[in-house]
Amino acid sequence: MKLTVRLLDIEKRGVLIHNEDARNLGVLKGDRVQILNAVNGESTAAFVDTTSTILVPGNVGLYRNTNEKVGFNEGESAEISESGRPVSLDYIKKKMNGKRLTKDETYSIVKDIVSEDISPSELMAYITATYINTMDMDEIEFLTRAMVDTGEQLSFHTKPIVDKHSVGGVPGNKISLVVVPIIAASGLKIPKTSSRAITGAAGTADLMEVLAPVNFSATEVQQMTQKVGGTIVWGGATNIAPADDKIIIQEYPFKIDARGQMLASVMAKKYAVGANLVVIDIPVGKNTKVVSVQDGRKLARDFIELGERLHMKVECAMTYGSSPVGHSIGPNLEVAEALRVLEGDPEPSSLIEKSLSLAGIALEMSGKAAKGNGIKVAREILESGKALLKFKEIISIQGGDPKVSSADILPGKYKFVVKSPVNGYVVDFDNKGLITLARMAGSPQDRGAGILLHAKRGTRIEAGDPLFTIFSERNWRLNKAVEEGRRLMPVLVEGMLLARIPDDIKWE
Amino acid sequence: MKLTVRLLDIEKRGVLIHNEDARNLGVLKGDRVQILNAVNGESTAAFVDTTSTILVPGNVGLYRNTNEKVGFNEGESAEISESGRPVSLDYIKKKMNGKRLTKDETYSIVKDIVSEDISPSELMAYITATYINTMDMDEIEFLTRAMVDTGEQLSFHTKPIVDKHSVGGVPGNKISLVVVPIIAASGLKIPKTSSRAITGAAGTADLMEVLAPVNFSATEVQQMTQKVGGTIVWGGATNIAPADDKIIIQEYPFKIDARGQMLASVMAKKYAVGANLVVIDIPVGKNTKVVSVQDGRKLARDFIELGERLHMKVECAMTYGSSPVGHSIGPNLEVAEALRVLEGDPEPSSLIEKSLSLAGIALEMSGKAAKGNGIKVAREILESGKALLKFKEIISIQGGDPKVSSADILPGKYKFVVKSPVNGYVVDFDNKGLITLARMAGSPQDRGAGILLHAKRGTRIEAGDPLFTIFSERNWRLNKAVEEGRRLMPVLVEGMLLARIPDDIKWE
Repeated sequence: MKLTVRLLDIEKRGVLIHNEDARNLGVLKGDRVQILNAVNGESTAAFVDTTSTILVPGNVGLYRNTNEKVGFNEGESAEISESGRPVSLDYIKKKMNGKRLTKDETYSIVKDIVSEDISPSELMAYITATYINTMDMDEIEFLTRAMVDTGEQLSFHTKPIVDKHSVGGVPGNKISLVVVPIIAASGLKIPKTSSRAITGAAGTADLMEVLAPVNFSATEVQQMTQKVGGTIVWGGATNIAPADDKIIIQEYPFKIDARGQMLASVMAKKYAVGANLVVIDIPVGKNTKVVSVQDGRKLARDFIELGERLHMKVECAMTYGSSPVGHSIGPNLEVAEALRVLEGDPEPSSLIEKSLSLAGIALEMSGKAAKGNGIKVAREILESGKALLKFKEIISIQGGDPKVSSADILPGKYKFVVKSPVNGYVVDFDNKGLITLARMAGSPQDRGAGILLHAKRGTRIEAGDPLFTIFSERNWRLNKAVEEGRRLMPVLVEGMLLARIPDDIKWE
Repeated sequence: MKLTVRLLDIEKRGVLIHNEDARNLGVLKGDRVQILNAVNGESTAAFVDTTSTILVPGNVGLYRNTNEKVGFNEGESAEISESGRPVSLDYIKKKMNGKRLTKDETYSIVKDIVSEDISPSELMAYITATYINTMDMDEIEFLTRAMVDTGEQLSFHTKPIVDKHSVGGVPGNKISLVVVPIIAASGLKIPKTSSRAITGAAGTADLMEVLAPVNFSATEVQQMTQKVGGTIVWGGATNIAPADDKIIIQEYPFKIDARGQMLASVMAKKYAVGANLVVIDIPVGKNTKVVSVQDGRKLARDFIELGERLHMKVECAMTYGSSPVGHSIGPNLEVAEALRVLEGDPEPSSLIEKSLSLAGIALEMSGKAAKGNGIKVAREILESGKALLKFKEIISIQGGDPKVSSADILPGKYKFVVKSPVNGYVVDFDNKGLITLARMAGSPQDRGAGILLHAKRGTRIEAGDPLFTIFSERNWRLNKAVEEGRRLMPVLVEGMLLARIPDDIKWE
């Protein structure tokens, strides 16, 4: 059926069809149709919304994300037809029924995830099915390769290409801003793609964006890496392993991160940028994604096995994940802290030592440092100022201002200092509580929002001593965060610890 | 935040917010907000779409299904605020993790399904989780009661109230049009709510709508039943167990019907209409929902146990489900066939005997017939013409024309007779293939579309003899169905059976 296009600038996918036309097409609200632009030959599937008044019969409304695929101008003619049920739904059902998926079946599903030929609900059925009926390593390998092959890939002429990943869940984990410059300054290439915060206070991409643009195509990432040795960009803009972003959005309300999908997601991104040496940071501890050392070892073995199947050398480092890394949480606060470390500040040691350990592993894997000597070489690169220079080259090539210094990056102007109600030792941090507060204060959208911690674990505190400061760019957000902060009290001083255990603490 | 309402007549739920307002509210596309109408006090949660052009900042677009809950007029002022994450998501996750749900947790989920406080994706996660991690009978009882309590209920002053249900999957199953009039003519009350076809060729509600309106409120159903003893209405309009419809829509793409949900869905509808005597027809056979007699027995035991928990007396009848019931598939063809039986036609016996068996069970359960005498009493009611008279009363009270006769109900004017390519015996029907053809021809939307079978199982056929006729209201649909019919050949004659087994037959 030929219908006249009306562009609907709503940021979603789908088509809006008049009820009369829907009847003639034989489709109902929620069904899928095929849309063809006969002029440019582009076509896509889309789900149907219906109306009786917004459109006249003979017109079809295209929401923005759908029109991006077929490129119509207002008033042009679209060919709309009933669309079949994608066969990938049968494979999802197969997984729901507890069967293993073959390579071809996995590819079919991932292809349809990327093209959005399956709906968010259908994707959620796949995610839930693989969460419950866990994938074996063959299936994980298929998923990884399918994620790689359905997106962009970099291809460098020389090896090694290094990459680094931190399994999430630890607030304040700005180490990529220190690790990437050290590795690149050593002469290695590290085209780092990173994520924005979904449930966290700031992803590495959110941090880097404080200093420079982070939206680049895969080709641009490759060119920049060839020129200066490293980049820190947002993976979402590169179209590398795009299936992963769509999966993550669906997982978000449930805060799940199924092991198989996590392995595939991480390794697909590394494989797609051409990395052959990969360091993976696995923070372990209460309130992180990996609770015990035993679980951490198992996850590490899985990463290494998957790496071997993909011909990548993987080393994993289990790190202490029960406390935030450094003292800051939230974009500007974290960027300033990382810049200070690159500028020579000897504190915070948790940030410096973790960064050097991970960079050191990469230096040893690549032969830039002798076995056992990696941290020392990394420290020399950091302390010599070479890492700072390299970081400024990276900022510059991404279009930021290389003259930036830590003093330029300021937190929000509204702040509130939370003081200890009791005397005692700082015994615990609640990672999720800290992240919740930072987000209530405005992180990551409001870059000045965040938390600055004043007390380290084990410090002796007197009643009235400052525990942490909440920063915000807006007063009403600060007030909300302060109110919630009093309830959550995410920095725990010994004397009050037992009082904070009851059920009303809802961090999960 | 106060925003001015713009009504968007798109048949879906949600709000459209300008990106600037979304930023100030602290919400992203896909997040949920609370919408309050301060004038009438109504409020609802809704998911956010965003735009930069369709609205100006300060305005909020309300899609139709969302505005139905809060009742704004164009230009009024809505209070929009960030909405928390519903706690039911934690319970869904609990089920994903293989735990049992309590009564309160189940109620919380069902409440949010009905109010649409959880998204279709989140609902799909629940459905997938309960499909894989099956519910035990306690959980099924909780789900049933929650479905009942979140919708309308009928309450009759006298008992018994009878109800009848057929587990689906058998094409042409128009028996309710015969069973309900027989039961009502015996003096019993049977307020039958029924469904429209989702994957089938015609649901009972689609059939009845050929003769009379089927959209009534629960109160109207009760009043009509009190007056004439029976109704045949569409359950979706009554708001009885509304959670079920929302679940079924999500299950549709996967063609799943998890046992626990099916039990809860059926029994919730019976419980909610006040039924205390329930007959359940379980068609058993290849290509039905219940493949073996053993599975059928197990399902029957489950229905009976769930009934006991709800203080309802349940009897189940396993019936032969491998062939269509009667000779017709599709709304008008089926209605005409059922009317002919009520008018005294002695054929088709499969329809008559099945209807009498089920009606007979209800008559025996209620004491209207002695044990072992039910079929006989039912046959007397049918053959005396009392069932036809009662059916006309039902048609009349629902607003249809009681003077209707089977001769008035005509199939579509386009038709094609499919002939046997070989000599041999009719050995099999492919239920799913028949349904597919009827749907391609236009069923159930086009009431004249459908299939008329000419040959019964076991009949001797010569090459060139008619096997079945496809009817359609539109020529292009007929052509499509004929083409597909040649490929599927859903009536199998011995001589060609082996040739139809290869993989290219894709009925599932």
